[in-house]
Amino acid sequence: MPMSRRVVVIGANAAGVEAASAARKRDRAAEITLVAQENTAGYSRCGLPFVLGGQIPNFTDLIVYQPAYFQMLKLNLRLETRATAINTKEKTVTVVTKEGSTEILPYDSLVISTGADSFTPPIKGREKSGVLSLRGIEDGEKIDAAVKTGAKTAVIMGAGLIGLELGVALMERGLQVTIVEMLPQILPQLLDADMAKLVMEHLQEKGMRILLSKPVEEFVGEDKVTAIMAAGEKIEADLFISAFGVRANTKLAADSGIPLGETRAIKTNMRMETDVKDVYAVGDCAEAPNIITHRATCAQLGTIAVREGKVAGANAGGDYSQFTGVLASAVTRLFEVEAGATGISETAATRNRIEVITGTISSKTKADYYPTAKPIKVKLIVEKESQRIIGAQIIGGEEVTQRINALSFAIQKQMTVRELAKADTAYAPPLCETWEPMVLAAEMVLMKLR
Amino acid sequence: MPMSRRVVVIGANAAGVEAASAARKRDRAAEITLVAQENTAGYSRCGLPFVLGGQIPNFTDLIVYQPAYFQMLKLNLRLETRATAINTKEKTVTVVTKEGSTEILPYDSLVISTGADSFTPPIKGREKSGVLSLRGIEDGEKIDAAVKTGAKTAVIMGAGLIGLELGVALMERGLQVTIVEMLPQILPQLLDADMAKLVMEHLQEKGMRILLSKPVEEFVGEDKVTAIMAAGEKIEADLFISAFGVRANTKLAADSGIPLGETRAIKTNMRMETDVKDVYAVGDCAEAPNIITHRATCAQLGTIAVREGKVAGANAGGDYSQFTGVLASAVTRLFEVEAGATGISETAATRNRIEVITGTISSKTKADYYPTAKPIKVKLIVEKESQRIIGAQIIGGEEVTQRINALSFAIQKQMTVRELAKADTAYAPPLCETWEPMVLAAEMVLMKLR
Repeated sequence: MPMSRRVVVIGANAAGVEAASAARKRDRAAEITLVAQENTAGYSRCGLPFVLGGQIPNFTDLIVYQPAYFQMLKLNLRLETRATAINTKEKTVTVVTKEGSTEILPYDSLVISTGADSFTPPIKGREKSGVLSLRGIEDGEKIDAAVKTGAKTAVIMGAGLIGLELGVALMERGLQVTIVEMLPQILPQLLDADMAKLVMEHLQEKGMRILLSKPVEEFVGEDKVTAIMAAGEKIEADLFISAFGVRANTKLAADSGIPLGETRAIKTNMRMETDVKDVYAVGDCAEAPNIITHRATCAQLGTIAVREGKVAGANAGGDYSQFTGVLASAVTRLFEVEAGATGISETAATRNRIEVITGTISSKTKADYYPTAKPIKVKLIVEKESQRIIGAQIIGGEEVTQRINALSFAIQKQMTVRELAKADTAYAPPLCETWEPMVLAAEMVLMKLR
Repeated sequence: MPMSRRVVVIGANAAGVEAASAARKRDRAAEITLVAQENTAGYSRCGLPFVLGGQIPNFTDLIVYQPAYFQMLKLNLRLETRATAINTKEKTVTVVTKEGSTEILPYDSLVISTGADSFTPPIKGREKSGVLSLRGIEDGEKIDAAVKTGAKTAVIMGAGLIGLELGVALMERGLQVTIVEMLPQILPQLLDADMAKLVMEHLQEKGMRILLSKPVEEFVGEDKVTAIMAAGEKIEADLFISAFGVRANTKLAADSGIPLGETRAIKTNMRMETDVKDVYAVGDCAEAPNIITHRATCAQLGTIAVREGKVAGANAGGDYSQFTGVLASAVTRLFEVEAGATGISETAATRNRIEVITGTISSKTKADYYPTAKPIKVKLIVEKESQRIIGAQIIGGEEVTQRINALSFAIQKQMTVRELAKADTAYAPPLCETWEPMVLAAEMVLMKLR
């Protein structure tokens, strides 16, 4: 007599919950268990800066999946439970419960979605207290408490998406914010230097202090950090945030003999299965191929996490599903500016030895004569030989996100720059220009190709 | 010794100016003449409702191409000059100037962009005065004058884009507005009935009176219209607007032996050339093939006009350029709602005997927990056999336009609904949902396909 399929999911945020839900969709009878270290499951990390900024009232508002959701889908959610070992031969996971007891959970399919953690490089004084980060609700509460107890100045180390979004949030709360970045530009993962400069100027106009090409050399202070040294400059503050980046949590997988890939995240195939049969890995701890370079990447974006979770969950539930790869489309809003990108940057293309032609155009978000039109800038990255669009970056006052999606679709469907220059677009004076800026950027590239 | 190429363009708005500019780009030495009946060239008709609504200060703000533009490009602009005949054998255009004198303009290439005019069906009493329309700046000024001299109520006949945009504008100016539409839905060219209903409800909530399935039967009044009869109901008002639609201005072409097509607009090939060599037709007076049905259409949209103008101008200037066809992507904002469409509607698909599956989803424009998130509804129309997306309609509080563009790109590149369901999209809580509504709509269709 066939037993019910047993699916175990380690981690219960974006990717994990999506995987469990997808498995349930495919198999109504499966026993599905989610193991989560935190005391809250299914919340949106990406929303944390906006609670701190005051746009969202409470951290609990970020909980996208309430207990009722898990009950409805008959997902066995085990909070404050830590997975300590995977036996891929016996097909079991060892967990330690909240009460400290050890349990062995057998599985037919296992999904690893252990996520990633904030990472601080081996800087002198790293052992000192007082450097916070923003990864989970508890981190958010600590930063909120620091602001409420009177912090007036903050130093954020790292000018990536989280660092800048948090910087804006703290400024909205009245703090003076200094961003310290080792590289010579902000948002190095998202934008080329020319486009990043525009965003930086906007942030500086708003009063953000941004120090580029300044590696953090030391955390200064007795037990508690009171200043940092960055490229020889001492910077004091009430609040220090580590936003250097995140690192995939792979220890559990690696200790269990599940191979990591070239990015040091868990290696997967197109079904999001690891090199070990019936073990899947998804989200911030897993690799997936980039659609342009075909190389393994670990994009660590919520959208990628849920898509991978859906694929792995379907497979774990007995179906067949493939993940189509990563373009890493991403977008952010910083004060009055939206910045987004999809595909590959010019910098990354060069690094991958892809010969490109780029075209950049400045235009407006509405008809030029419409009083509330805002500026927008579009940069296209086109592969020279095929004339296909392989990347795009947009900075503007509004309506950036869906232009990024439009160009993401174009890239995925291998649209050439010539096709984009002739593409049919919508127009209305209060909503956009007759000649859509994306189309004008394509024209710019064509002029260089002629 | 070679003479300069002589290019004559009849009509100097969107399509005509674009054609003349494109011809100049290809041939620096050409003699390029634009013949325009009006006393103003190069203005945006689409902006007229927003001057009337008060968003744009003056009608003259709509002039996109100032005299300096024509001078810079050495385009010989002949205002208040009427083309009265084309001799396609001799390759000449006869024009009557402002002063009443007749001139013969020889051409090597001719571009006809005579546009379209408002059309009132043969309704009893049509000869009476007092029914205005909104096609040009002069029309706009007449309506503006009527409002300024105390009109309190308006009846607009026709619930298309212009009728509704004008209706909203007049309501913003304080008038009571009644829309009278013969068909059983508003926006019949743009939306299916299910989606149109949502827009209508929004307009009704704002106080617009909308009468559907009511053909106008009579214009009532002595010399001047004071009421209309619609399906037996007498409706009085201070202001009457004919917004039944527009008809291609083809008399000049037809009288010169240039063939019209099945839509009664001027027939063209992929180079926007008519059946007569070296004579091109573009914009509201010309036909072009629909990308989905491959049948001739006359979309009469500004975006199509400029694209056709660009192609014809390049060809008229000695280059080779093809027009890729029409998806008729269009968008409008009516009070707080944006509505847009691209490709084919379900209704039009059925009429063309294309078997389709549709999927409709309601979602939010931002993360569900983000306080200012607005509702959005996406309908996808998918060709059953190929599973390709062939149409889309979106209604929402914001960010509709670029989603229409995204789906326009998807349709042009023959994206299947399965590909859309897996597409890489951007996400940030203040800007959009993790699962983009377009992607969710694709999921809806897939569930029906399984």
